[in-house]
Amino acid sequence: MLLAYEGTRYHGWQIQPDAPTVEGTLEQALLRITQQTVKVQGAGRTDSGVHALNYPASFELNTSLPADKLKVALNAVLPDDIAVKHLQSVPPTFHARHSACGKRYRYLIHNRPYPDPFGPQRAWWLRRTLDLVPMHEAAQGLVGTHDFTAFRSIHCSSPHPVKEMREVALRWDPQVPGLLRLEFEANSFLQHMVRILTGTLVDVGLGKLEPAAISRCLESRDRTQSGQTAPPHGLYMLRTRYPEGLVEWPEGVLHP
Amino acid sequence: MLLAYEGTRYHGWQIQPDAPTVEGTLEQALLRITQQTVKVQGAGRTDSGVHALNYPASFELNTSLPADKLKVALNAVLPDDIAVKHLQSVPPTFHARHSACGKRYRYLIHNRPYPDPFGPQRAWWLRRTLDLVPMHEAAQGLVGTHDFTAFRSIHCSSPHPVKEMREVALRWDPQVPGLLRLEFEANSFLQHMVRILTGTLVDVGLGKLEPAAISRCLESRDRTQSGQTAPPHGLYMLRTRYPEGLVEWPEGVLHP
Repeated sequence: MLLAYEGTRYHGWQIQPDAPTVEGTLEQALLRITQQTVKVQGAGRTDSGVHALNYPASFELNTSLPADKLKVALNAVLPDDIAVKHLQSVPPTFHARHSACGKRYRYLIHNRPYPDPFGPQRAWWLRRTLDLVPMHEAAQGLVGTHDFTAFRSIHCSSPHPVKEMREVALRWDPQVPGLLRLEFEANSFLQHMVRILTGTLVDVGLGKLEPAAISRCLESRDRTQSGQTAPPHGLYMLRTRYPEGLVEWPEGVLHP
Repeated sequence: MLLAYEGTRYHGWQIQPDAPTVEGTLEQALLRITQQTVKVQGAGRTDSGVHALNYPASFELNTSLPADKLKVALNAVLPDDIAVKHLQSVPPTFHARHSACGKRYRYLIHNRPYPDPFGPQRAWWLRRTLDLVPMHEAAQGLVGTHDFTAFRSIHCSSPHPVKEMREVALRWDPQVPGLLRLEFEANSFLQHMVRILTGTLVDVGLGKLEPAAISRCLESRDRTQSGQTAPPHGLYMLRTRYPEGLVEWPEGVLHP
């Protein structure tokens, strides 16, 4: 299935015993509708407060209910900050996380003198004007295959800190004045990686770091060399890539 | 000043004794900062739950505080669902409501099978697919100078039901799949007029009314001939027009 969620109320994706999570809320909805205990596999963990525009998740279920009916039933039961955009049968080899070969995140920054009354929990508000020229330069220094140890949480336990950064894009939203979009696409990401990359690029845009500092950070493999961690509420899981032909979404379902 | 607000928490613009309103919240903020009781004149009333992207308001204040400092102070004191986007001195002849010579409203409809987790209070969710062809035709029948009595609340007491509708535009949002924008521009509007026009156009899009019914509604001057009243939470005050040269906003301040 393909989900969208507003993460403000949730302690992230992954189920936890005493806190509301997106996974836990979905599994409760599935239990209520199917009377079966279903484990939902998400495309990846998201932090507390992080949002998702197109979030794939997979699960195994024996049911006579057609996918479309199950989707309608789930949306009727789910709270209004989680939506099932699409639901379809997939080959048993498909797994939302294990099958993924790439991910794309978006980070939204409101860079203007006043906060946005429509998005206090949907973008990071920065009053001081960012200089995009050095930010673009710094962003290009991130592209390629690097050890991103300097850009992950010190609590991150992944044994694979080398990632292939395929694209880093910065552009102003064409519709909302002062809304800046950062997008990061890589084969996979480390814990807090997008938030630390964003915070470091912001430090470059504020003149606290030189663009060339990015390469030095990467080489140092030292978290203390990179910049601040951007807050979770500006972050959106945008896309998950799967090998060609494994899964196809109908037109109009994917949020651009 | 030019404001933006998310109207969900407010009982509309106009001050009321026992309910939170945008005007009341602004006047409290001005009192707190200036220790003066200031009456704020808004460009027009908005209903409970209606939003504003560019809302002009004017007031008289004797202060040594420069406009920019007052703006920063107001934003620091105001709740995060109201923002002062811009503040400037104007000639004493300027009055946010009396000087206005036109207004433009936007109505957002999410027309897709699943609700939007990011906008349950920011657009009207309609699951059934709207047919835009008859809606366009019906919309064109509204343009021109007409008596809009059939499209106002039965409680509306305006002595001037004849309005000049300058434009009615329907288009899909280029960024969000299934998000339909209706925009209405007229010299002025009657109570609930945009919501009833939107509800009637939706009835046309759902096949409940023929496009030609619009002209018959206008001629009837009978509220029972027109369609449903669209809910307030999809409505946005978008622009207020003033005579050329009376007030100019700096570039980038107006939400497009």
